[in-house]
Amino acid sequence: MQVRVNEVGPRDGLQSQGKTLTVDERLAMIKALVKVGLKNVEAGSFVSPKAVPQMAGTADLFPQLPEREFVHYSGLVPNMRGYELATQAGAEVVNVVLSVTETMNQKNIRMSLNDTARVCAEIAERGSQEGVQVQAYLAVAFECPFEGLVAPGVVAHYGELMHQAGASKIIVADTIGAANPVMVRHVLDGLLANMPAEKVSCHFHDTRGMALANILASLDFGVREFDSSIGGLGGCPFSPGATGNVATEDVVLLLDSMGYETGIRPLDLVPVVRAVETLTGASLGGKSYRWLAQQFEKQTEVAGHGE
Amino acid sequence: MQVRVNEVGPRDGLQSQGKTLTVDERLAMIKALVKVGLKNVEAGSFVSPKAVPQMAGTADLFPQLPEREFVHYSGLVPNMRGYELATQAGAEVVNVVLSVTETMNQKNIRMSLNDTARVCAEIAERGSQEGVQVQAYLAVAFECPFEGLVAPGVVAHYGELMHQAGASKIIVADTIGAANPVMVRHVLDGLLANMPAEKVSCHFHDTRGMALANILASLDFGVREFDSSIGGLGGCPFSPGATGNVATEDVVLLLDSMGYETGIRPLDLVPVVRAVETLTGASLGGKSYRWLAQQFEKQTEVAGHGE
Repeated sequence: MQVRVNEVGPRDGLQSQGKTLTVDERLAMIKALVKVGLKNVEAGSFVSPKAVPQMAGTADLFPQLPEREFVHYSGLVPNMRGYELATQAGAEVVNVVLSVTETMNQKNIRMSLNDTARVCAEIAERGSQEGVQVQAYLAVAFECPFEGLVAPGVVAHYGELMHQAGASKIIVADTIGAANPVMVRHVLDGLLANMPAEKVSCHFHDTRGMALANILASLDFGVREFDSSIGGLGGCPFSPGATGNVATEDVVLLLDSMGYETGIRPLDLVPVVRAVETLTGASLGGKSYRWLAQQFEKQTEVAGHGE
Repeated sequence: MQVRVNEVGPRDGLQSQGKTLTVDERLAMIKALVKVGLKNVEAGSFVSPKAVPQMAGTADLFPQLPEREFVHYSGLVPNMRGYELATQAGAEVVNVVLSVTETMNQKNIRMSLNDTARVCAEIAERGSQEGVQVQAYLAVAFECPFEGLVAPGVVAHYGELMHQAGASKIIVADTIGAANPVMVRHVLDGLLANMPAEKVSCHFHDTRGMALANILASLDFGVREFDSSIGGLGGCPFSPGATGNVATEDVVLLLDSMGYETGIRPLDLVPVVRAVETLTGASLGGKSYRWLAQQFEKQTEVAGHGE
């Protein structure tokens, strides 16, 4: 059975880094990811370069993306103008972010929850008219750093709203890494009352070490797509207490070990982590990285002896 | 609903450390653990001090253990002589280790699997006659570093053997951290065909980052007891590729977050991790430790302001 791994390092990951990569460096990172089999990549965002300098030049990046016919590249957009920039740049998948609490919207983008929901719905509607997939992130879906725990019914409500508006995917995002498997079950139970599991993806952070347990709980609900970031790169700069996204190598190793097909060999991710460390200057690596790196070295030694 | 957390740091953890602690230092470590609510502690082993110098003096340690009336202390024994030493020292719970593959027994203790099984069964039988709980570890229950994957039927067989011999608990041990949730389900499915879930405990290592996912899978099977080691201290010195035990703080935080009662507050474990770092000189901390330490500092600040 197949499970999609959606790599968010080039956007969600890079966005929180002190060092800003050039478009060419971002392209090199994406090429390294695609080369080992990632088929879903969040490549960048179409936001103000003043607000997020790390994402400047995404419009130049998109036309250069490799293997466009085999890889689904998405771009994050904050508003209709962003949608237009993204589609003009050739994006076929566009991500919108709907934080499900009032305060998070106010603090993050200075908009009300209602206004954000309206804008996201308008983008989803336009996307479905124009043949552009619009994926809707439901941010702070478990806990908001400002308002605390979020009721599962709230997530179900905004998920249903975006589903009705034509969003191709509803992505439940544990923006601050506060979810646990019980919360995941409650949220998915509510959300999946109104839509099939194929419509849902999950985005976990590993702040409290529970991301893989949360993925396991989601798999049991039929969810077959997960976000992750190579080496655990990233976090949310606007969310106090948020640390890294769950690492791609951890997610791929879990899924691969459990017999799910991801199209990616876990050991192939080791040199990619290293390449991204070199590009970003960040010290990276998920929970399984040390073990994977050991196995990778052994594999390389064996291959070396064979020559 | 209650879940038991069995702290193995003072034995399984310390045993693999380069630095050998004195009996007083080991006692200090145990006191720190018991103070924050740990009620099940593997306090040491009754083995040859030549083979495992880190565990020398366990017979002196046991009579000094704090709160004996409230805490279940166990001691690991390799044979009947060890059983006698342990019970003479006042141990009311004794652990035996039955690695379920031939090669692991040969390499680890230079005995055949059959001989080890016989010795463990004899100890379990004697224990049940003498009112001493004998807990049977089934080591390398998922994968053996020498023989590879272990069939779930093998685990069920030796589990049943030890159950029939009178073992008070069957502890499924992922000695090298190779288990994934699918394997956990297969092994527990086989084992629980012959005994109730209350008889079973699980011991996971976090080598590949999947320990909490494995615990979640075990909880779904009704398992309500787990081994863990404070700060992730430890590993198995005889198992190539093994790294640390799953960290107590990670397990307690997962269980606590999910609404299970452990009797331990996750934040209380932060100073214990620090104390054990000081005692051992090791750099410790599970996956959740950074976050827990942040929360602990905040809590301390707030308490400070209140004064």
